[in-house]
Amino acid sequence: LPGRVGLIVEYRGTRYCGWQLQPNGVSIQQLLEEAFRRMTGLKTRMQAAARTDSGVHARGQLVAFENPSRHGPERLREGLNFYLPPEVAVLEAFQVAEDFDPRRAAVGKHYRYTLLCRRAQPVFEAGLVYHCPYPLDAPAMQRAAFMAEGEHDFSAFRAADDENHTAVRRLDLCRWRAEPPRLVLEVFGRGFLKQMIRNLVGTMLQIGRRRWPAEKMAELLSSGDRRRAGPTAPASGLCLMRVFTDEESYRENLRLAAESINLPVR
Amino acid sequence: LPGRVGLIVEYRGTRYCGWQLQPNGVSIQQLLEEAFRRMTGLKTRMQAAARTDSGVHARGQLVAFENPSRHGPERLREGLNFYLPPEVAVLEAFQVAEDFDPRRAAVGKHYRYTLLCRRAQPVFEAGLVYHCPYPLDAPAMQRAAFMAEGEHDFSAFRAADDENHTAVRRLDLCRWRAEPPRLVLEVFGRGFLKQMIRNLVGTMLQIGRRRWPAEKMAELLSSGDRRRAGPTAPASGLCLMRVFTDEESYRENLRLAAESINLPVR
Repeated sequence: LPGRVGLIVEYRGTRYCGWQLQPNGVSIQQLLEEAFRRMTGLKTRMQAAARTDSGVHARGQLVAFENPSRHGPERLREGLNFYLPPEVAVLEAFQVAEDFDPRRAAVGKHYRYTLLCRRAQPVFEAGLVYHCPYPLDAPAMQRAAFMAEGEHDFSAFRAADDENHTAVRRLDLCRWRAEPPRLVLEVFGRGFLKQMIRNLVGTMLQIGRRRWPAEKMAELLSSGDRRRAGPTAPASGLCLMRVFTDEESYRENLRLAAESINLPVR
Repeated sequence: LPGRVGLIVEYRGTRYCGWQLQPNGVSIQQLLEEAFRRMTGLKTRMQAAARTDSGVHARGQLVAFENPSRHGPERLREGLNFYLPPEVAVLEAFQVAEDFDPRRAAVGKHYRYTLLCRRAQPVFEAGLVYHCPYPLDAPAMQRAAFMAEGEHDFSAFRAADDENHTAVRRLDLCRWRAEPPRLVLEVFGRGFLKQMIRNLVGTMLQIGRRRWPAEKMAELLSSGDRRRAGPTAPASGLCLMRVFTDEESYRENLRLAAESINLPVR
């Protein structure tokens, strides 16, 4: 038997309730497990490196599962894609060690949040960005993003039902890049709290609209008070770009992303 | 009265029969004229710089029309966007001279054809690329593209119902760029025949699949025989990126596009 299999999965999360199986709504996990069952007639349980929320997209989710069928990775990739809806695709499939756990194997993750800053509605990127038809103070947003970099207690930016023991996390990169008419937040880190990035973006949008000064970000990080932070930014703008299982590759991609930042921190 | 108005229009052409009014099917021209009538209660006739075919997309179509309403350009942009379907958006609106004709004003156009070269189906770019799940010989395709650059009689690459008097055209740029997993053809020229780019791509795909040698491109250009050329590539991969009305801007963007080409002509 081929044994345990890893997958790189891409999905448009709009119509789904996130990665994890849910009593109400269809999850990406359910779609993948059902595709496997329809292909092989066998049951399996899939695990992912990141539990993306409802509506969040992924270009590089890392998934692993026990493969009780006789199909090898390549056949599985083709077969799963045949049974998956057009919003989900398996990009790669490969054998992994019997004890491979995608959550524990992940040494870092790259997330991206994309704002479309123009009056006209999104056409080509409908559902894949958050549309901001009002002017934004990008330099102030960049100062706020820079304050969130490094190690902090992110209590003010965790979801109410976040179950992690500690809210201390380290962001290795949290910086906006201008790609007119887009503003793109690149985030690299080893671990995240539930809705942490969307909550950070929600506060940065308040700062961008000049409702709050950039310094409010530092203040919120110190206070740890969720009620004083901004609203959660919409899921449509967030995408899990990549999960790294290799330290060197994480550092190299972090370096390249940092080099791509074209808005200075003034 | 504000007088004649110009528009920059973006559209996803998938569900429409192209720019021009057609007896069967909904055109982009019809959608814009109807949006104007619903907004103002008045009739007008819109003209575009390029008659894009059924299914072809645009990021920068140039449109002009006589504005019999009292609304200025900004109000028109907002009002038209309100009445347009989500696949069409007016990005800019501005006053133009009374004798402004977008076809005659265009000194050059930039088209892009995008191939998605991977086994898995497109997810984020569904309908916006042509999916090639088979291997392609990109260097051979680049040699063929290079042969099509410059001035030629493109008789072998015009649609059967093309009505232009002469098939002689000049491509200022026709070159593939690798953006893995994408292959992107950048095309700059002052004038094009009907389906010319899609017919060139169809032949380059035959060359990429090694059914024909790259030299077949030169042979087809000399022969002028449409029956010997490849099939028309699907409309989904083609996008009118920009229409230039200013010579300097055309040359500058042509230069930047040429610099972005990362596949050498060997």
